[in-house]
Amino acid sequence: MEITMRPIGFVRSPYRTTSQVPKGLGAKHDAEGVLEILEEFEIGLTDIEGFSHLIVVWAFDRSEGFELLGTPPSDNRPHGVFATRSPRRPNPIGLTTVELARRDGRMLHVRGIDMLEGTPILDIKPYLSSIPAETLKRGWLAEAAARQK
Amino acid sequence: MEITMRPIGFVRSPYRTTSQVPKGLGAKHDAEGVLEILEEFEIGLTDIEGFSHLIVVWAFDRSEGFELLGTPPSDNRPHGVFATRSPRRPNPIGLTTVELARRDGRMLHVRGIDMLEGTPILDIKPYLSSIPAETLKRGWLAEAAARQK
Repeated sequence: MEITMRPIGFVRSPYRTTSQVPKGLGAKHDAEGVLEILEEFEIGLTDIEGFSHLIVVWAFDRSEGFELLGTPPSDNRPHGVFATRSPRRPNPIGLTTVELARRDGRMLHVRGIDMLEGTPILDIKPYLSSIPAETLKRGWLAEAAARQK
Repeated sequence: MEITMRPIGFVRSPYRTTSQVPKGLGAKHDAEGVLEILEEFEIGLTDIEGFSHLIVVWAFDRSEGFELLGTPPSDNRPHGVFATRSPRRPNPIGLTTVELARRDGRMLHVRGIDMLEGTPILDIKPYLSSIPAETLKRGWLAEAAARQK
């Protein structure tokens, strides 16, 4: 079974290479950028301006192959790819929550970009609800943070 | 540009048809199910058991075509597809946050399933942080809820 996707738009980002994107524990993602949606899909943005936060589904188009076990920038121990945000995934899907600053036609001006310039956007969904912070367990990431204190 | 994906596993769900899945304002998703990961990807689950919540990226494999403007179950007015969770999207990608109850080898027992039995899973990522509820704006969904009070 194969599922074929195509971009609905592209990210306009200040980052040109992965080395420019903040990584690791405590990395802050407050870069501003634009989600430029293709004209043919613009009507699908109707009423999106009422939401403060969006989930962007995008493709790691500059990542090749995958690694089921790898050591992320936030730790010095290996973890399974599905327990990390590694770009080297069986399906090269990235997820980023951004804050919507304003919509200008088919241009969504957002804050919180961690994608590279030109990244293909596959989908956008409204961010509807949160898991309360006090109920979240963050596994190896919490342990790595504790070790670095 | 086309991007081809293939399942890393399949959802075992109590729901056989979309009519069985709770929908609309105030719908509760507490159904239990299993994310059955293919053997070839099992090593990618290493350390996932430390996380309380996971984001499941999946494919709406029983949805055909897309509708850029549609009326969701939670309102009587049409909204753009990217401002809704409609299954009829340009790329048929679904996202669900589930609570991880336990891992049994390549079987992840989870709570919060809203997918149908046999749904292809494309990716799993740890849920790492939340937008504080008090900073979220929920656009037309908040308006529809207010009108129904």
